[in-house]
Amino acid sequence: MAPVINGRLLFNQLPNGLPEPGKTTVYDTCETIDLETAPLNGGILVKTLVLSIDPYLRGRMRDPSIKSYAPPFLPSQPLDNYGVGLVLRSERSSFKQGDHIYGRLPFQQYIVMPAAAAEQYTVLNNDTGLPWTAYVGICGMPGQTAHHGWREFSKVKAGETVFVTSAAGPVGATVIQIAKADGLKVIASAGSDEKVAFIKSLGADVAFNYKTENTREVLAREGPIDVYWDGVGGETFEAAIGAASVGARFIECGMITAYNGGEPYYVKNLLYIVGKQLRISGFIVTSLHQAHLSHFYETFPKLVKEGKIKYKEDVTKGLEHAGHVIVDVLTGRNKGKSVILVGEE
Amino acid sequence: MAPVINGRLLFNQLPNGLPEPGKTTVYDTCETIDLETAPLNGGILVKTLVLSIDPYLRGRMRDPSIKSYAPPFLPSQPLDNYGVGLVLRSERSSFKQGDHIYGRLPFQQYIVMPAAAAEQYTVLNNDTGLPWTAYVGICGMPGQTAHHGWREFSKVKAGETVFVTSAAGPVGATVIQIAKADGLKVIASAGSDEKVAFIKSLGADVAFNYKTENTREVLAREGPIDVYWDGVGGETFEAAIGAASVGARFIECGMITAYNGGEPYYVKNLLYIVGKQLRISGFIVTSLHQAHLSHFYETFPKLVKEGKIKYKEDVTKGLEHAGHVIVDVLTGRNKGKSVILVGEE
Repeated sequence: MAPVINGRLLFNQLPNGLPEPGKTTVYDTCETIDLETAPLNGGILVKTLVLSIDPYLRGRMRDPSIKSYAPPFLPSQPLDNYGVGLVLRSERSSFKQGDHIYGRLPFQQYIVMPAAAAEQYTVLNNDTGLPWTAYVGICGMPGQTAHHGWREFSKVKAGETVFVTSAAGPVGATVIQIAKADGLKVIASAGSDEKVAFIKSLGADVAFNYKTENTREVLAREGPIDVYWDGVGGETFEAAIGAASVGARFIECGMITAYNGGEPYYVKNLLYIVGKQLRISGFIVTSLHQAHLSHFYETFPKLVKEGKIKYKEDVTKGLEHAGHVIVDVLTGRNKGKSVILVGEE
Repeated sequence: MAPVINGRLLFNQLPNGLPEPGKTTVYDTCETIDLETAPLNGGILVKTLVLSIDPYLRGRMRDPSIKSYAPPFLPSQPLDNYGVGLVLRSERSSFKQGDHIYGRLPFQQYIVMPAAAAEQYTVLNNDTGLPWTAYVGICGMPGQTAHHGWREFSKVKAGETVFVTSAAGPVGATVIQIAKADGLKVIASAGSDEKVAFIKSLGADVAFNYKTENTREVLAREGPIDVYWDGVGGETFEAAIGAASVGARFIECGMITAYNGGEPYYVKNLLYIVGKQLRISGFIVTSLHQAHLSHFYETFPKLVKEGKIKYKEDVTKGLEHAGHVIVDVLTGRNKGKSVILVGEE
């Protein structure tokens, strides 16, 4: 069989503000691979089917000397993120041809995975028959983020009130549904009327467009809030502190407003952290896997399959579009969990 | 017996920035009381012996329409705070003449306490024979704050590092000693060389004067920090976020730099709350009494009496000086736990 092109999305240069496709990232087609003869040296050959696109990727486009929770992308190397791949060939007993694997995959169409690296992947059995894209969304990192963060930090009682931001995003939309199942009043915000309609359809009691309604005023009317699910930070974080009840729990899963550099919004009421006895917890989903991942896989795919937890995907076909899709998720233009369909089975 | 003057420190007008004795507070001697004949109507007559002076009193000098954790002082009424009083006469079976009681007392020399109000006081047995002033300091609210906050939130392992601010204050100085007993490396800051010498004498491994050494640089050299004991907020809070290890615990017991109004310092690195997975907990000591107060009284007075926990008092004689002493604690001029000796036994 003749070699085929092995397309890759490479990290090219540091962005200043929002990343720019063609500058920050470059789609490269100069490499080829012979899928039948490429030597595996004891590893596996994987075809990338699905890649997840998430706001936190912006944080990895940084000077490698700056430390942060996720490693920086390296110049001229492919980006990477959670994805689902198909095993085309295997020289390891733990994987066989036709297996679907989940884990961090580089942004390239085919990967020869060395033996040691292969072991970090999970084989998905998918006995509920969900589409593979679901495994980077509602049944992948975003769903796990909502599930783990809520179980670890929310400490809710029925009748309490939660404020969910980025509520039309894959994490926020899931949090709304978990919170409703727990008997809470849910206030949720998003950045377009279309998104607001979506979060209302998920059961949010109060849904508003933060671009046309003032968050502080909505919280003054509908709060106080006992739980704050934060995906944005900045001025919204300040409004949440102002509307928090005594002992409120703040679950800090992202501060997207601070990701693109520039001057951050200055929060003026941190003093209330003491007086209101707030519990503010930042977290990274992987740190909570040990405590919550098995419960997640036992319950979530089934709830999703039964329609008890709804989700929305925004699927783009073709790795060459990934650079633009990253900008879309950073500016809120995506309509559901953003996924790149890199290859078909 | 002739009536005696019953001196009182009254709240007179809202301060703008630091309170001003004679304006914000006024010492008043126009009331008298006959200690033998004043009717008790089923209550008790108390002579105030000791009153505590603490930074949080500034927060109570506010417009009553502003809500906060501690109630506002009311115009023309005496201030109040934790203190120790001597029961001169009692018409309640739960108190007898000669009892020493602990609780919130008004800033006045003698109080006829109505029956219902009397029940909020604790009779101190003081079987260790500590001076009564100790019961508003190391064995009172500041000691309890250190003890409760540490037990509830620090979650330390021996070998970790803590950064203690306001470290020469009665809370911070106690935290240093608890942390050393738990096997931690202690970095501690205070605002004068004399205070630095004091905190070194308590066992701090690294003690520095934040007015002459840069907090950020000290933490870069001596950190990262696993626990941050915050009594100051603002720029120091920012430095602590910068020097925090992943999963660090921030115990927020006060943000004194924000108490006196004006523009707060703007913390620029709140984004790291997520990436560093910080646990930030604000608290008010009274909320933790249920979980920790009995352990406190079982252990602390004994440790203090045996010299295993050291403390330092700054005692001022005479209620008429209380207005100035409040300014001293807000500006860091006190040398140890600030106490007013209102009356002798």
